[in-house]
Amino acid sequence: MRVLGIDPGTVVAGYGVVEHTADRFRRTALTCIAAGEINGGRKQPLQIRLRTIFQELTALIVRHQPDCVAVEEPFVDKNIQTALKLGQAEGIALLAAELAGLPSAIYPPSTIKLALTGYGRAEKFQIGQMTARLLRLAEPPKSHHAADALAVSICHLHSLPADGRRPATETRIARAAATGTPGGL
Amino acid sequence: MRVLGIDPGTVVAGYGVVEHTADRFRRTALTCIAAGEINGGRKQPLQIRLRTIFQELTALIVRHQPDCVAVEEPFVDKNIQTALKLGQAEGIALLAAELAGLPSAIYPPSTIKLALTGYGRAEKFQIGQMTARLLRLAEPPKSHHAADALAVSICHLHSLPADGRRPATETRIARAAATGTPGGL
Repeated sequence: MRVLGIDPGTVVAGYGVVEHTADRFRRTALTCIAAGEINGGRKQPLQIRLRTIFQELTALIVRHQPDCVAVEEPFVDKNIQTALKLGQAEGIALLAAELAGLPSAIYPPSTIKLALTGYGRAEKFQIGQMTARLLRLAEPPKSHHAADALAVSICHLHSLPADGRRPATETRIARAAATGTPGGL
Repeated sequence: MRVLGIDPGTVVAGYGVVEHTADRFRRTALTCIAAGEINGGRKQPLQIRLRTIFQELTALIVRHQPDCVAVEEPFVDKNIQTALKLGQAEGIALLAAELAGLPSAIYPPSTIKLALTGYGRAEKFQIGQMTARLLRLAEPPKSHHAADALAVSICHLHSLPADGRRPATETRIARAAATGTPGGL
């Protein structure tokens, strides 16, 4: 089971591909396949940035062949203009998954923090540290966008059955997306 | 000069194609080529709705061959969740234009109302009536999404040079989108 996690943004988006494997003794492992940032170019017009990020996400799907996509729901405090921008970024991430025929799930930041650290209001550096520990990385990812993207991938894998069986994710994920709450959590 | 206007939405999006022509006496006319709604299906998951609306917008661009796209900036009062949803809708509309190689411009509702009625806080029915009058329609469009989409097309055409010359829109529009204020207004 391989997940592409996305931390959406209209200037910089994070991505992280995580694979979940189980051997015949049912020992499971999480492996980081790829992680990084897509930079839309701060000085580019919005339209160009959206296209760049969409096309790069599509290229990542082709390259890494994930089974599904997990998107971090943007957190916005009060600013409506920020919410519109982050909605644009979220929309093109979901569209890239859907046009590639992949199921996608959306997780709010608190759910991701809870899944990784056991605490829904964990700090950014704790997410980075837990991501590194769970994926057996030498150190936390330097980019917090990449760390967040790996974290949402791990969160998604944690929400699946623990015995490594491939779950019937499509329906659950579709329902999760429709109601705004991730299925199985 | 032909414009595809879009009133973005994640369930229902409006579209309106308007053509601006000038004869050899420089008499100009606005003509409604097409207008209507794209329905993503209220009961469908968000991902499916975004894909449907994106694909239908792309099909409209292929069918009607507009020279550019004008998008109404979603108006959101306070609700962050609504802003995220409308941002998603706006993002895929801009992406559809960009992937088709068309320049696009974003207009806030107040600018559209001002361009059509001379009053930035005009009511919805006034927009419908002015749209019908300017396009010489027998009556205002039944769908207010279609009316809004025709209105943003007209607003965009009004922002161009009045003598029917084809303007160098690309730079101005790109700049308008980057700063959030429509060029030439």
